[in-house]
Amino acid sequence: MSDRLDITYILTCQAGETAEEKTLGIALEQTVELPQSCLDADLQTRITGRVDELVALADGRYRARISYPLAAIGGELTQCLNLLFGNISLKRGIRIVDISWPEPLLAALGGPAYGIAGLRQLTGQANGPLLCSALKPVGLSAAQLAERCYQFALGGVHIIKDDHGVADQPDAPFAERLALCQAAVERAADETGQRSLYFPNVTASYRELPRRLQAAKDAGCRGVLISPWITGLDALRFARDEFGLALMAHPALTGACFGPDHGLAEELLLGDLFRLAGADASIYPNAGGRFGFSVETCEAINHRLRRPLGAVKPSMPTPGGGMDVARAPEWVRRYGSDIIVLIGGSLYAQGDLAGASKALREALTAA
Amino acid sequence: MSDRLDITYILTCQAGETAEEKTLGIALEQTVELPQSCLDADLQTRITGRVDELVALADGRYRARISYPLAAIGGELTQCLNLLFGNISLKRGIRIVDISWPEPLLAALGGPAYGIAGLRQLTGQANGPLLCSALKPVGLSAAQLAERCYQFALGGVHIIKDDHGVADQPDAPFAERLALCQAAVERAADETGQRSLYFPNVTASYRELPRRLQAAKDAGCRGVLISPWITGLDALRFARDEFGLALMAHPALTGACFGPDHGLAEELLLGDLFRLAGADASIYPNAGGRFGFSVETCEAINHRLRRPLGAVKPSMPTPGGGMDVARAPEWVRRYGSDIIVLIGGSLYAQGDLAGASKALREALTAA
Repeated sequence: MSDRLDITYILTCQAGETAEEKTLGIALEQTVELPQSCLDADLQTRITGRVDELVALADGRYRARISYPLAAIGGELTQCLNLLFGNISLKRGIRIVDISWPEPLLAALGGPAYGIAGLRQLTGQANGPLLCSALKPVGLSAAQLAERCYQFALGGVHIIKDDHGVADQPDAPFAERLALCQAAVERAADETGQRSLYFPNVTASYRELPRRLQAAKDAGCRGVLISPWITGLDALRFARDEFGLALMAHPALTGACFGPDHGLAEELLLGDLFRLAGADASIYPNAGGRFGFSVETCEAINHRLRRPLGAVKPSMPTPGGGMDVARAPEWVRRYGSDIIVLIGGSLYAQGDLAGASKALREALTAA
Repeated sequence: MSDRLDITYILTCQAGETAEEKTLGIALEQTVELPQSCLDADLQTRITGRVDELVALADGRYRARISYPLAAIGGELTQCLNLLFGNISLKRGIRIVDISWPEPLLAALGGPAYGIAGLRQLTGQANGPLLCSALKPVGLSAAQLAERCYQFALGGVHIIKDDHGVADQPDAPFAERLALCQAAVERAADETGQRSLYFPNVTASYRELPRRLQAAKDAGCRGVLISPWITGLDALRFARDEFGLALMAHPALTGACFGPDHGLAEELLLGDLFRLAGADASIYPNAGGRFGFSVETCEAINHRLRRPLGAVKPSMPTPGGGMDVARAPEWVRRYGSDIIVLIGGSLYAQGDLAGASKALREALTAA
C-alpha cells in the first residue's frame, strides 16, 4: 500500500482536447490550481498530482492514473472529496473508476464503528440476511406511522427506518414521531420477545442534526438513517464519533454523480466513500427495481462495502428501491447473506404488514 | 406567488418509458414513495406532487411542471434538496430547469445576510466591480501564502481568499495561515490606508467547521470561503446565523449535477440555491476560462443571484476560473458592475502581484 492517493479516471476527450493535456490538467487542477509555469520544481514534484499511467482504450476513451501526495490532502474528508472531484466536476468527460487508499487516510477517516458484525449484535441476528422496511408515506400522522412501525415489529423486521423523505414535516414532526415509533418497537418487543430497531431519519439542518441525534439516543434508539450527500458526507463521521449510534446511509442526491462519462463510479461513492465515512449500512437501488442500476454495479457496491480494507470494518450492503418480496430470496442467494434486504412498497401492497413481514422473514431465512 | 413549490423538468424518456409515466413517477417518488394504489384520496390530493403541465418539445423531449405542497417539505433546506433531486437523481433523463419558490420557503431559508449592499459596505467600494484573488498553491508555507496576501492587499484587491484547495494541510495549517494572512492585510492597510479583506477557507469536517468559523471571527476576518456542496449546503445557513460572517461560496463538486440531460440547471444550483442558503457571493467558472460554461449560463446565474426574490437580498455573482486579466473589463461591461471579478492565475503569471493587482483594479474602475 502506497502512501499516495491513487485515482483511476476514464477520460472522454472533447473536440480539440488531447488526452495528455486533459490528464495533466486534472493533476494541476486538483492540487495547485496554477499552470506549471507558475510552479517551482519543489511544488511540481512534491505537491502536484503525478500522472502514473495514460492508456488509450479500444472505444476511443483513455484510462489515466494519477497519484496524489497526502500533503495535498491533509487528514480531512472534506478536502479529500475536493481533491477527488471538486473542480474537475465542472469539466466534462472525467469519470473516476477506481481509488486506492493510502493507510494514513484510511486511519484518519476510520470507517464504520459497528460494521457487519456490530449490526448483527445489535439486531441479535448472528447470520442470514437482515430485513429492513420503511415508514411512509409523508403526510401520515406520527401515530399512523407508529402503528405501521408496530406492525412491522410484530412481523419481525429487524430494522424499521423512517422513509428518507419523512423529515420534520407538520403532519408527523420529528420529536413526536420519534417518541411514538420507539414506543411502538418496545411494545412489540414486550409482546413477541424479539426486538426490532427503529432508525429515525435525522437528516436535517447543520444546527438541528446534532439535536436529532441526541434525541434519538435519549429515546433509546440504537441507530439512525441519514442522507449524507444532503447533510454533507462528513456528517456520518460526526454522528459516529459524537453519538455512537449505528448509521444507515441513504443515497439521496448521489445519483447526480453517476453520469456515464462524468462523475464517480457508483461503487466508489456508495461503497468506498460511504463506508470510510462511517456508514454501517449503505442503501442502494437494487437492479430490477424502480431505478436503473445493473446487477454488476450492485455487485461492485457489495464488494467495495465488504472487501478487506486495512483496519476498516466492512459495511452491510442494503439493496432496496422497489424490490419485490417474491424475488428477495433470489437476491440473497446472489449477493450472499451479509446484506440487509430493504423492502417497503412490496410489503405495503399486501395490506397486512405484520403478516407480510413475517412471511418475508421466513422466506429469507430459508433462502 | 403560490404556496406550492413549483418545479419545471426537461424529461428525456428512455426506451419503453412514456412521458406520462415518467412524470407521475417523479411526483410520487419525490413525495410518498409508494404507488398510487397504496394511497388514499387524501394523500393523493394533499401530499403527492401534482402534475400541472406536460408538453412535448420539438426535440423529442418533454417539459413537465410539477408542484409540491409545503406539507411534503416542512421548513428545512435538507428536505427541500431531497424533494428537488433526492431519489430522482438515481434515475436518468431528468433535468430541473426552473423553480418557483413559495413565500414561506423563501422566508424559512432566508438568503444572504449581507448581499450585494452588505459586501459593498464591508469593502468600502460603493460602486463598480469588486476584485478578488486567491492564495495558492497548496504546498506553500503559511508565511509564503501570507506574503502573497500582503502583496495582493498592497495592490488593492478587495477580497483575498484562500484557494478552495488550501484547507488544513501540513505545509500551511489553518490556524497559522489565518493568523499570518489576517496580519498581512492589516499591515498593508496600515501602509496604504485601504483595507483588503482576507476570507479564509473554512471548508472542513462537521465538527471542525464551527471552530474555524469562530477562529476566523476571533481573528478579525469579516468573511470566509466555503464549498457548500462539500460541507452540505445548509452549512451556509449555519455560518450565516451563528457567526455573522460574510459568505463566499465555491462551486467545488457541484459540477456533477450539471449533466446535459440529468441534474439541475447551473443557475438554479449556483444561483437560487446558493443564494437562498445564504451565499453573499457565489463563485462560478466564467465562460472563456478553464471550464466549459457558456456565456448564456453565466448570465443566467447572474440573473438568478440578482433578481428580485421576495425579501431575499441579492448576491454578488463571482465569475472566475481562469479569467484573463486583459479580458476582465470586457466581462464587467457585459455582466454589469455588481460583480466580483475573481482572478488568480493571470495575476500570478505576471510575477509582481501588487503591481499586477493595482493595474487590474485601475482597469476595472475604468471599465
